[in-house]
Amino acid sequence: MTQPSAKALVPFVSVDNMMRLVNHIGIEQVLRDLATYIEEDFRRWELFDKTPRVASHSDVGVIELMPTSDGEAYGFKYVNGHPKNTSEGLQTVTAFGLLADVYTGYPVLLTEMTLLTALRTAAMSAVAARYLAPKGADTMAMIGNGAQSEFQSLAMKAILGLKTVRLYDKDAAATEKCARNLSGTGLTVVKCTTPEEAIRGARILTTCTADKQNARILTDNMVGAGVHINAIGGDCPGKTELASGILSRAQVFVEYPEQTRIEGEIQQMPPDFPVTELWQVLAGTARGRSDDRQITLFDSVGFAIEDFSALRYVRDKVRDTPYHTDLDMLADPDDPRDLFGMLHRASL
Amino acid sequence: MTQPSAKALVPFVSVDNMMRLVNHIGIEQVLRDLATYIEEDFRRWELFDKTPRVASHSDVGVIELMPTSDGEAYGFKYVNGHPKNTSEGLQTVTAFGLLADVYTGYPVLLTEMTLLTALRTAAMSAVAARYLAPKGADTMAMIGNGAQSEFQSLAMKAILGLKTVRLYDKDAAATEKCARNLSGTGLTVVKCTTPEEAIRGARILTTCTADKQNARILTDNMVGAGVHINAIGGDCPGKTELASGILSRAQVFVEYPEQTRIEGEIQQMPPDFPVTELWQVLAGTARGRSDDRQITLFDSVGFAIEDFSALRYVRDKVRDTPYHTDLDMLADPDDPRDLFGMLHRASL
Repeated sequence: MTQPSAKALVPFVSVDNMMRLVNHIGIEQVLRDLATYIEEDFRRWELFDKTPRVASHSDVGVIELMPTSDGEAYGFKYVNGHPKNTSEGLQTVTAFGLLADVYTGYPVLLTEMTLLTALRTAAMSAVAARYLAPKGADTMAMIGNGAQSEFQSLAMKAILGLKTVRLYDKDAAATEKCARNLSGTGLTVVKCTTPEEAIRGARILTTCTADKQNARILTDNMVGAGVHINAIGGDCPGKTELASGILSRAQVFVEYPEQTRIEGEIQQMPPDFPVTELWQVLAGTARGRSDDRQITLFDSVGFAIEDFSALRYVRDKVRDTPYHTDLDMLADPDDPRDLFGMLHRASL
Repeated sequence: MTQPSAKALVPFVSVDNMMRLVNHIGIEQVLRDLATYIEEDFRRWELFDKTPRVASHSDVGVIELMPTSDGEAYGFKYVNGHPKNTSEGLQTVTAFGLLADVYTGYPVLLTEMTLLTALRTAAMSAVAARYLAPKGADTMAMIGNGAQSEFQSLAMKAILGLKTVRLYDKDAAATEKCARNLSGTGLTVVKCTTPEEAIRGARILTTCTADKQNARILTDNMVGAGVHINAIGGDCPGKTELASGILSRAQVFVEYPEQTRIEGEIQQMPPDFPVTELWQVLAGTARGRSDDRQITLFDSVGFAIEDFSALRYVRDKVRDTPYHTDLDMLADPDDPRDLFGMLHRASL
């Protein structure tokens, strides 16, 4: 056997290596870095090749491909969503992603993206909050203490300077787990037993629950003036977390309206319900928060460009580390026309 | 570090292992097996989730995702097309693919697909020829002696009983390479110096050239009655190989009309040009060849279901062999809600 050439090898970041990479850099630094990469890409939003997810639905779940390109790099994420998996000891969501060179079409990175998606989702929320939350907001209510809750809390600390997080989950064990994980991070953690208690004094309200049906985690009378709502959990048709009365009173910011109107909180509202595209706020062409009493809402569903930013970051960071292995994934005959000869010679 | 559970590991077939697998089974047996898998899937064509490729174009090439699902398994192929790559010592086309379980959304196979695509394309051609070529046809003209030519020739031998192949390429070195690779396979190989010489006595005419512009590898007066044309090379807008007069005289069979009308030979014809869907011939609901004097044409562009068949085959065959490695690609915390805890514990 001849060895494949370097060009035919694709760096692969396993789950194990992703954990090593993140722990090596430090999770708060990773979150800050991801925020920087996301901001860069949101500022040049218009040059991206944007397309809605390519979804394949079944009775029990969905498998999606989320591609995008900035003209130099091409990225896509594979992600599934199977709520019934948890009861079978499997993950609801698993993901991996690929980055390729547009000029050659060759993949340049294959990586796990379950952890990476959790990190980029949290960094995205903190970027939005930096532009939308009231000045000086340093207390957050974290409603829903599942897999995303610690990442959200730490990103708000690392990027926005959050000091206190007030936890609530209808399952007290989830709150205990989140509080335990956040101990020693420098955040003041308050465990609450009702949503009303959790939002007391909080000027950032993050909802991240897993209810499948239309839910009302926050009702209209719970939300007063001068708060920023970071709504993470509503992310597919039929799945929302906020009472529509809140949406009517809020200035709503979204990633990609074509997708959010189908998947986000605003699926409850008419198709012409006014929204602001977040990238325009970052680019300086649209206004973020206009005054201290406004209610701002980031209706987050996750968009391919955020994954692209995360893939770019991992490619840049992993390059000179041992935290990857090389996959012999691309056939590379010496003579491009002699694929058959390569196969035949391998048998000798 | 705890080890990831078996559920979190994805079998990966590298280029090296694909070559070992194919050489272990024997290439002619692989081609026959692939033909069987393709026939199975074409017969149940209607239950597949079909979508045109998701393409991202640039000035120098294209990157495509080709997904499909039969409701039990989901597959997609990543494939690029960069004609200028050859001059830079890179492949024009590289590909890899993934198969997943629709019920869980978990990937079950990641594999190189450059070699696998060459094999499935050849098997597909031979399946079509079995239904469309004149009875007893045992001589093929192979026009274009590039990377696909040996695979085409061997598939026609293994699946159809081809005895003689008559080679022509405008580059004599390609013909020499193809003839050398086919020596010892049992095929009678005749090297020709003109297309006219190559088609002499051949009742199957395979065209597989790389001309980018609209070409006329076969002109109208070269094609007489009672032949089957297997047109492989025309596979993107602006790339065709046959004079339109041939199309007018032929009964044209296609994979997926929506895609072939854009990419295939029939892009030269009006949008309502009559075609027969090949799957209907295999399912017995449409007629294949109707008489010995008919000209049949398989206008092949390649469709996602063929890749799906190939992915199914590799999954089935590789299972109990050493020809794969396991990739730690899916995050698998003991408690699905404790992704953060898994990351944190990895740092201890």
